[in-house]
Amino acid sequence: MKYPQTIQNLIECYRKLPGIGEKTAERFALATLNLNQDVIDLFSESLKNSKTKIRKCDICNNLCEDDICDICKNDSRDNNLLCVVEDPKSVILFEKIGNFNGYYHIINGLISPLDGINPEDIDLDKLINRIKNNNIKEVILAVKPSIEGETTSLYISKLLKDTDVVVSKIAHGIPLGTEIDYVDSLTLELAMDNRKKIEDE
Amino acid sequence: MKYPQTIQNLIECYRKLPGIGEKTAERFALATLNLNQDVIDLFSESLKNSKTKIRKCDICNNLCEDDICDICKNDSRDNNLLCVVEDPKSVILFEKIGNFNGYYHIINGLISPLDGINPEDIDLDKLINRIKNNNIKEVILAVKPSIEGETTSLYISKLLKDTDVVVSKIAHGIPLGTEIDYVDSLTLELAMDNRKKIEDE
Repeated sequence: MKYPQTIQNLIECYRKLPGIGEKTAERFALATLNLNQDVIDLFSESLKNSKTKIRKCDICNNLCEDDICDICKNDSRDNNLLCVVEDPKSVILFEKIGNFNGYYHIINGLISPLDGINPEDIDLDKLINRIKNNNIKEVILAVKPSIEGETTSLYISKLLKDTDVVVSKIAHGIPLGTEIDYVDSLTLELAMDNRKKIEDE
Repeated sequence: MKYPQTIQNLIECYRKLPGIGEKTAERFALATLNLNQDVIDLFSESLKNSKTKIRKCDICNNLCEDDICDICKNDSRDNNLLCVVEDPKSVILFEKIGNFNGYYHIINGLISPLDGINPEDIDLDKLINRIKNNNIKEVILAVKPSIEGETTSLYISKLLKDTDVVVSKIAHGIPLGTEIDYVDSLTLELAMDNRKKIEDE
């Protein structure tokens, strides 16, 4: 005995979402039956649009519905500053903080030789050409503080060694409000190495 | 700064699912972008079908795509036995166990005077008529063991008092594999009251 085909299909689709197992998918499918018609229409339409309308910005790789994303379209931002991030989510995060006024560039993944992802696989040429052709003064690397992130950051900074571009990296250290005993030793080591004199602040 | 409209819409729709907040909905929406075209098509189509194709079985209220559900269509089951459950999920659960061979009837909710749900709101007439007109010998009540469930069970058994129908209730007690100290006192009390002589089993 199974649910009717439509519900089985919904369960199967919900299971494709990250972290969703059989039970939760079943709960979602049954809850879907109680959604309003307009939510169903919007949901169904948006799913289709996710394949047809959403594309990558020609300039920065951000997600957008036009050729160029809203941030790249905005010419009142500081075009000396470029922040390199891993994914569109990071752009939203930085924009929520709201104090960065430069542009972004999203790279397609991080260098990870163990997973067979080499520098040429993540299209760094587009990034380097953009930096060189647009008179960018400072590149801020804001990728994940992991081995892959560090490798990628290092590689990008090497590619820009012969230019006048300043390459910086967002600071790593102890997050505010954290108990020091819960911080891992590598972070603690970094926090110690990157200590600042109090009068510097 | 927000995501493109399509992604915003997806986030909004995913948030309508039970237990899904802003962050998870965002993760789902971004993950949706990576789904295959055929999954997207199936998902979108199934959502629409959930409104147009899925209906309640004319006989037992189970979810189905025809007038009558697969279980009610199956005339090889035992038509003396009727199991009364709360929702279509319960039917699937009992069918998975597979040792009940009668028919089911799904009531539309439980009697709950505090929430303003009275006996007339859950269409018990359909159930009672079905029992009386179909020569059913035993009605097994398998609803949630809560105050509402108990009230509803009691009410149904009263409606059938003047008939020859045997009304039974699934057993409550300590679930197998549970430590006794984790079981609530009401369940423990029920388990004690409903004790069975070992030779009975």
